Amino acid sequence: MFKKAAIVGIGLIGGSLALEIKKKKLAKTVVGVSRRKQNISYALKHGVIDSGSCGLSILKNSDLVVIATPVSVISGISAEIAKIIDPSECIVTDVGSTKSRIVEKLSRIFPRFVGSHPLAGSEQRGVINAKADLFANSLCILTPQINTEKEALRKITALWKKVGAKVTITSAKKHDNILAYVSHLPHVIAYSLISSMPDEFLAFGAGGLKDTTRIAASESGLWADIFEENKTNILQAIAAYSLQLRKLQQFIKNGDKRLITNFLSKAKNKRDKLE
Amino acid sequence: MFKKAAIVGIGLIGGSLALEIKKKKLAKTVVGVSRRKQNISYALKHGVIDSGSCGLSILKNSDLVVIATPVSVISGISAEIAKIIDPSECIVTDVGSTKSRIVEKLSRIFPRFVGSHPLAGSEQRGVINAKADLFANSLCILTPQINTEKEALRKITALWKKVGAKVTITSAKKHDNILAYVSHLPHVIAYSLISSMPDEFLAFGAGGLKDTTRIAASESGLWADIFEENKTNILQAIAAYSLQLRKLQQFIKNGDKRLITNFLSKAKNKRDKLE
Repeated sequence: MFKKAAIVGIGLIGGSLALEIKKKKLAKTVVGVSRRKQNISYALKHGVIDSGSCGLSILKNSDLVVIATPVSVISGISAEIAKIIDPSECIVTDVGSTKSRIVEKLSRIFPRFVGSHPLAGSEQRGVINAKADLFANSLCILTPQINTEKEALRKITALWKKVGAKVTITSAKKHDNILAYVSHLPHVIAYSLISSMPDEFLAFGAGGLKDTTRIAASESGLWADIFEENKTNILQAIAAYSLQLRKLQQFIKNGDKRLITNFLSKAKNKRDKLE
Repeated sequence: MFKKAAIVGIGLIGGSLALEIKKKKLAKTVVGVSRRKQNISYALKHGVIDSGSCGLSILKNSDLVVIATPVSVISGISAEIAKIIDPSECIVTDVGSTKSRIVEKLSRIFPRFVGSHPLAGSEQRGVINAKADLFANSLCILTPQINTEKEALRKITALWKKVGAKVTITSAKKHDNILAYVSHLPHVIAYSLISSMPDEFLAFGAGGLKDTTRIAASESGLWADIFEENKTNILQAIAAYSLQLRKLQQFIKNGDKRLITNFLSKAKNKRDKLE
């Protein structure tokens, strides 16, 4: 499928994708770039990549580059990558959790760019958590623009399908609106919930508290970036959520059992659709 | 340990406790009571209990009664139970998620009463989900009063330890304050979060949304009862949480990356203590 696939950012997502590309033989060679030398050593030792480097010159002659760095780094590193690859040949994608700004910038830098967002992360991170089947049965959202090259879109679609993901296509704007609700809002809530917990009560936390706050163990810098990038949509989602919270709070305050039960039972029906 | 242990309410908690009492031979015989005949049939067929009935007369001559019904039923059924057992002989406990009102009432009805709350539930319910090791490594909170009989407290403590729980003791009032934060508040939030989700976005929900809303699949009637019983503490916990949420919301609105990162990183540190 590709001659030389390059993954920039060998973390949970980048490392897992590299593993699966090698396992499924989707490229003749897979190279990796990381800021940290120890990530490269680990990735080489565990067969995640065929060769690796802390510098970008290793990307030369790649026909696929996947940018899997934190969101805040994508734009800056792309300008550097464009100097090394042949932009008229190489297909480029990213795996960022926000898309509008990234897609706008990167499609100006790379003529063969398609934005991707595999919904397969977790509160874990780093190449040590990478696994080949991370994308199995996950959803990957692609966000092409009107002028996105059809061949690039076709190949990036095929790539994600081959590694096990279901592919769906939306605009970058729609993606950011959806993700604000289904991912960024839950993170805002999980971080706020654990923050409100008195320290001396933590020892009493059981399954309910653990589940609802699990994603608050996610890396803070990474999420501060996302909250900044997708600010408007996230503030809108927080407002919609606060409305529901205040409604339930009022029902509890009034002790109106019928309205409470009705609220909870509608919520349960919706949750039951999730899996 | 006991001659005849009786479980009133053969659901997830009651059924699991019955299974474990039988497995560990903590009573010569284990009887069960359920409103639903099919629960009794299931429990008998799967060896959860030795004998069962929809009526309370089967409780006669029990030396242990565990009331494992929904919170709203506990008080009413206790008056009925007191007419059948010998209250001067039989040790009684409940497994309700709220304690202040229940302990006050039941300790007046039963001289040998100790309030229990095993923190081992989940969004699942019913005897079909019961399993012997449900309490392994879980926490069980006992809420004795000043006049609680020492021998009853000793035996109920031993019972929970034998089925694998770690036992901790607090006042009923303190219990309800703690649980409002570590369990009832996460439920309020999970129900509100899923309620704020646009239906057409549900298909994009991945691990983060599933984890944070899992407990919103809990039975609504049961939780409406708890929200009513522990109203004051829950409203206080919602207020403390809303303060944190509004703080983070304001940081995002102001685009203050330093304050956002600081908030998230403190939250992550707290979450990392949870397991």
